[in-house]
Amino acid sequence: MKKIGVLTSGGDCSGMNAAIRSVVRTALSKGLEVYGIRQGFIGLLDGLIKPMDSRSVSGIVQRAGTILHTARCEEFKFDRGQEQAVKTIQDFGLDGLVVIGGNGTMAGALALHNKGVPVVGIPGSIDNDLYGTDMSVGADTALNTTVSMIDIIRDTASSHDRAFIIEVMGRDSGYLALVSAVASGAEAAIIPEVPFDLDAIATHLFERYKAGKTNSIVIVAEGASSAYTIERKLKNKIGYETRISVLGHIQRGGATTVFDRLMASKFGHNAVEGLLHGKFGVMTALHNSQYMYVALEDTVLKKKKINSKLLDLAVDLSS
Amino acid sequence: MKKIGVLTSGGDCSGMNAAIRSVVRTALSKGLEVYGIRQGFIGLLDGLIKPMDSRSVSGIVQRAGTILHTARCEEFKFDRGQEQAVKTIQDFGLDGLVVIGGNGTMAGALALHNKGVPVVGIPGSIDNDLYGTDMSVGADTALNTTVSMIDIIRDTASSHDRAFIIEVMGRDSGYLALVSAVASGAEAAIIPEVPFDLDAIATHLFERYKAGKTNSIVIVAEGASSAYTIERKLKNKIGYETRISVLGHIQRGGATTVFDRLMASKFGHNAVEGLLHGKFGVMTALHNSQYMYVALEDTVLKKKKINSKLLDLAVDLSS
Amino acid sequence: MKKIGVLTSGGDCSGMNAAIRSVVRTALSKGLEVYGIRQGFIGLLDGLIKPMDSRSVSGIVQRAGTILHTARCEEFKFDRGQEQAVKTIQDFGLDGLVVIGGNGTMAGALALHNKGVPVVGIPGSIDNDLYGTDMSVGADTALNTTVSMIDIIRDTASSHDRAFIIEVMGRDSGYLALVSAVASGAEAAIIPEVPFDLDAIATHLFERYKAGKTNSIVIVAEGASSAYTIERKLKNKIGYETRISVLGHIQRGGATTVFDRLMASKFGHNAVEGLLHGKFGVMTALHNSQYMYVALEDTVLKKKKINSKLLDLAVDLSS
Amino acid sequence: MKKIGVLTSGGDCSGMNAAIRSVVRTALSKGLEVYGIRQGFIGLLDGLIKPMDSRSVSGIVQRAGTILHTARCEEFKFDRGQEQAVKTIQDFGLDGLVVIGGNGTMAGALALHNKGVPVVGIPGSIDNDLYGTDMSVGADTALNTTVSMIDIIRDTASSHDRAFIIEVMGRDSGYLALVSAVASGAEAAIIPEVPFDLDAIATHLFERYKAGKTNSIVIVAEGASSAYTIERKLKNKIGYETRISVLGHIQRGGATTVFDRLMASKFGHNAVEGLLHGKFGVMTALHNSQYMYVALEDTVLKKKKINSKLLDLAVDLSS
Repeated sequence: MKKIGVLTSGGDCSGMNAAIRSVVRTALSKGLEVYGIRQGFIGLLDGLIKPMDSRSVSGIVQRAGTILHTARCEEFKFDRGQEQAVKTIQDFGLDGLVVIGGNGTMAGALALHNKGVPVVGIPGSIDNDLYGTDMSVGADTALNTTVSMIDIIRDTASSHDRAFIIEVMGRDSGYLALVSAVASGAEAAIIPEVPFDLDAIATHLFERYKAGKTNSIVIVAEGASSAYTIERKLKNKIGYETRISVLGHIQRGGATTVFDRLMASKFGHNAVEGLLHGKFGVMTALHNSQYMYVALEDTVLKKKKINSKLLDLAVDLSS
Repeated sequence: MKKIGVLTSGGDCSGMNAAIRSVVRTALSKGLEVYGIRQGFIGLLDGLIKPMDSRSVSGIVQRAGTILHTARCEEFKFDRGQEQAVKTIQDFGLDGLVVIGGNGTMAGALALHNKGVPVVGIPGSIDNDLYGTDMSVGADTALNTTVSMIDIIRDTASSHDRAFIIEVMGRDSGYLALVSAVASGAEAAIIPEVPFDLDAIATHLFERYKAGKTNSIVIVAEGASSAYTIERKLKNKIGYETRISVLGHIQRGGATTVFDRLMASKFGHNAVEGLLHGKFGVMTALHNSQYMYVALEDTVLKKKKINSKLLDLAVDLSS
Repeated sequence: MKKIGVLTSGGDCSGMNAAIRSVVRTALSKGLEVYGIRQGFIGLLDGLIKPMDSRSVSGIVQRAGTILHTARCEEFKFDRGQEQAVKTIQDFGLDGLVVIGGNGTMAGALALHNKGVPVVGIPGSIDNDLYGTDMSVGADTALNTTVSMIDIIRDTASSHDRAFIIEVMGRDSGYLALVSAVASGAEAAIIPEVPFDLDAIATHLFERYKAGKTNSIVIVAEGASSAYTIERKLKNKIGYETRISVLGHIQRGGATTVFDRLMASKFGHNAVEGLLHGKFGVMTALHNSQYMYVALEDTVLKKKKINSKLLDLAVDLSS
Repeated sequence: MKKIGVLTSGGDCSGMNAAIRSVVRTALSKGLEVYGIRQGFIGLLDGLIKPMDSRSVSGIVQRAGTILHTARCEEFKFDRGQEQAVKTIQDFGLDGLVVIGGNGTMAGALALHNKGVPVVGIPGSIDNDLYGTDMSVGADTALNTTVSMIDIIRDTASSHDRAFIIEVMGRDSGYLALVSAVASGAEAAIIPEVPFDLDAIATHLFERYKAGKTNSIVIVAEGASSAYTIERKLKNKIGYETRISVLGHIQRGGATTVFDRLMASKFGHNAVEGLLHGKFGVMTALHNSQYMYVALEDTVLKKKKINSKLLDLAVDLSS
């Protein structure tokens, strides 16, 4: 192995740059050449590929987003697109590939692996929904950014005797919403993994209201419902005013946290080590505080479950 | 003058607490008793009034929101409500009143003044739309909170080759949107004070796109349009993807900036001094760096204009 | 068990409040009465003890410091002081005690346990030097606060072509310094666990300088040396200017991170559960992502080692 | 005027980049060529000069520090150095120069002006000590960074019943220290402009202590004394423990505030306009909310006074 490529794909997250930096620096320290591929799999189709050196990743360890840019790529979902990508990889003489991103990205990485490309994935997703790893790059930062915004909204809510219905990202996963709810001391959380009873929530809020607690926060995971729907249904049942906040894309950003910088650095290191030692078709992972590899096939096909102890904790603390 | 009351009303903003603290500390240092009135004019109707001492305002100078709580009060818009308020003021033996809030709040303060209550207003509004003062308490903090969120979104936008349409608060005023646009280096701003030409904006963005600048930020003041409307109209004309962010209530918060702490402190000080020296029916103001008073009547009746030089600067820098 | 007490002792850290809140809320939900003891073991000597309810812990989950106050207490290190504490505990009818703090605090907790007081400890320390738990409450926040300050200093260093020697807290432990160094991309770290060779560091910085990298960050753990000493020795050997920064007490603060909020909440929950199930003389712990208990005796007597893989990573990335 | 140069010199501050960006964009929009000069006057001596375009200033409006780098330059204080600079300016065909920095930098700018170089200065200094302008670029950001750190220290102080002696930058000026003290609600401030009576401060703190206020913050301007000296003298007189914090270089940084971005943008614009309209030997200024120019000679020779009303406010609020 002499030359490797690195790309980021799918939704961006804070920590992708720390991962890129680590891939580049580790590869260089092992005597490899490294090429950056722009805009994810689009860059593989269109040959947007350039050499990187130690300088190209200076000063980026804390920066949200990705210097390689990212995109979703419809063409790459089809065999024809994948064949084109394989050809580009051969044309540029890349002996291996590090692919950083979420579920869809790992599916793309698996497709390349199945066509014989030596590839290692790094999980990067604010949703933290990748099977096989306890944490994905970007999730810790997204949680901290999200919760700091909920803290800000709490100030407003508590000045106004209001209930705030806050919609949080996460696609099909309630992870970001649930952890944010526990960490911000929210009064209720609505997530896709658990059936919810709006009447019970309304009663809970109304009881609190009668007990003099005249502000509250309800977190809604985008995968479960929308803040607008929930507000319409709670509105006249809780005794006080309601307001809505949809946090949106801000959750993808914020300066990368220390945890994400460290894990991304370690993942980047392990991805290069994996390529060098013939570990292909895998994704770097952190499980029970141990760094390891998991087969891309497992990551792509299996579904991650939400931590049930976290659910219990949520119930205990909101009372 | 022996006893004064202080209340916050209307939308909350960061810096109200710094103003309350200054009113209380200044009043105490002048030998006055101070009463805190909860929930704005509602507290005057319902007698939600308690004595405050130096301790009641400890540790709040940086906290967003208001420890006295705030509310909008429909009843108070009518004579009957105002009469009830005057009665409460007499019952509690309050000789003067400091009222902190925005336009509607100043209208309420003027109504009390017209009924013979010695009252001084302090402008507090993230919209910064109060006539007679260059800045209102809360505007500087709201600007910094808003712009730091736009900075975060820029990271995402620039990783994805996207245009972000960001909706910013401000009611009828484009101040918050325009200043945020200039300070964040946005490519376009749509505000109520200036007619906008969406085709020209689309062309501008498309030209930039062709020149290789594949991300952009468009700021929309809520008083001019909505992010949804603007996105729908720009979407297919600019060559690349669009996304929406509605910043919402987060803009009201954030730790109070130094400027807001200082101005709020000075306003609080001047409000008490005003009451002591018979300056009734006025609002504290800052104009051309000078602290002064402006008649509540002027504030309520006249309309503030947006700074035209700021508009020129916006045009120069976005090119 | 009907009544329990909770105290914080030793150096404060961000997350103590989240732990207190969880102890109080969990205890109340189990039907226990909870008493807050002020100023650590001093409060046990002087009877500074008051009942707490759900309201007493509202709005504190994100606040650095401790609402119960903390202190170091010389008297309590002697048998006489400990006997006095036991007497107070009996006088107030406390059936159990939750003690939050670092190494010295756990030694105090063990002393009480040995005198028959049912006690459970919660590790709280920015130094993260408690044996038996991978993380202590406050360490993640301290890391993030520290690193965000180093990021700020990097801006200045890189504008000036300077080397910054930054002294980081941690008492005898290099954990905070080492992780901060890796996460901030520092060029060198000096920690007590590893012998350091200043000449090698100087040569490394000088080589970088000649290669055109004209700014650098050297992190010094307070347990290894001082920024002043290191600067004096590096000063004339690296080719460019040096500056010093001693981060100091700011590292104890910052809004509590999500990780610390969650872990503190879980620890608080487990501490109360421990007391209820007769698990006395233990400390709550997190090891390999599993929540567990560790004997106070082990925590007090054994010494935690620094993660050797972290050291390897530091070497790889700084090249 | 066809070609202009821009440089930053002296201590860096947040907002220099916003000023550079505005100089470059404004100049380009007027049809001028712009050259960036690296490392301040050193770049003029050594010809470190490169053309800049719109892209070179993308994404920097919020970044602390300066992309052009800065330095102090001893040689330039002598005629020989200045002559060398003039020669470089002629060699590169620069028709005008924008110089961004503090007092020493403006003295350098004046020297060039006296040698016939068309030059306009922009005040950039966290000390805010430049005569002729109410505010310098970087002061508002430095104030906010400083105060947010004091807020963090307050959390620790209030958990421990401690007095913190905090040393703040500012060279000969007490501005940064005084405003930080007022804005953070510090109990005392020691600044060079006002004689201080340590016994009176000790008595004040001790009185507060006896009244139950067991934590306090004393701000020391580096121009008046040092935190170490003040602590040694206060230590045994106030009844409780003392700790020290020297904020240091962190104060230079932090994301540029909205105020600094706007003012820097306007100054950059006005500097280019000044050059185009033959206004040479001046510095851009903001006085009583009006943008204007002031003669470099006045700035260099006259001494700015501290705002006396601010002193009064400090006294009123700390009681």
